[in-house]
Amino acid sequence: MSLQVADLRDGEVTGILPSGFDAGLYFIGRIQTPWRDRSACPRRGDPVSGPNCRIELFDPWTRALEGIDRHDNLDILYWMNQARRDLLLQAPRHAERTLGTFALRSPMRPNPIALSRVKLVTLGENWLEVRGLDCIDGTPLLDIKPEHCPNALTPGA
Amino acid sequence: MSLQVADLRDGEVTGILPSGFDAGLYFIGRIQTPWRDRSACPRRGDPVSGPNCRIELFDPWTRALEGIDRHDNLDILYWMNQARRDLLLQAPRHAERTLGTFALRSPMRPNPIALSRVKLVTLGENWLEVRGLDCIDGTPLLDIKPEHCPNALTPGA
Repeated sequence: MSLQVADLRDGEVTGILPSGFDAGLYFIGRIQTPWRDRSACPRRGDPVSGPNCRIELFDPWTRALEGIDRHDNLDILYWMNQARRDLLLQAPRHAERTLGTFALRSPMRPNPIALSRVKLVTLGENWLEVRGLDCIDGTPLLDIKPEHCPNALTPGA
Repeated sequence: MSLQVADLRDGEVTGILPSGFDAGLYFIGRIQTPWRDRSACPRRGDPVSGPNCRIELFDPWTRALEGIDRHDNLDILYWMNQARRDLLLQAPRHAERTLGTFALRSPMRPNPIALSRVKLVTLGENWLEVRGLDCIDGTPLLDIKPEHCPNALTPGA
């Protein structure tokens, strides 16, 4: 991937990335979706009426799915491997002004970890089918977590 | 950190980790909390009545906070650097049986990325104060995202 100043929109600002990494990630599976490139992806996954997507786990992680079907909703973490990592200010098409990277859910961020809350549809032996993803076909999987209570911010809910 | 079979509880199962990493992470800041070790941490952060915690950003990421105060609730991603990564089945004290790692929000997982949804209390120049974290003092920060709609799973909400 070669990144050039020409890839920046008006008002976008980059920083200089650190010279080395501080920790390492394992790709633990692969996500199959209907979308072949980023321009085809929805801006946000839809757990109600979006298409079913399939998550395949690599060995040895299959066994770590045990008991996951006690949960209807899952947080899926995945790696946006096509995203540049040095943007500080971004000018997204949908926003009326330039915003800091941390004020956006854009895939372009220092650690391009994406997070979608999805609905579990079917559990297989080494795969699950879920609804609510937004990423391109072949995206590397990082983690699956059962959801917190969705109303955790509402006292007494 | 030296891990031994003696660290496993009855029924816990480990896998063999891959020989190398697939991607790298930058630590972009540091989280200050009242908790000095894991046994002191709450099982889950409380964005309503939990203590305020301070997140400090490293350079050059400070600038990427611009506009974040348009959001009340944030997803904070951080790195559980004390957690072992090879557990497939776990026997948490609170559970009645052994469960797969992906059926739990335990810090012990192949990629120990923790996720808390917090309330933004105060924004400073290179720091924010938030409520709802559960991690030990000094935990490395990976990402800050504005929340999705908290009721995204409820049609029409």
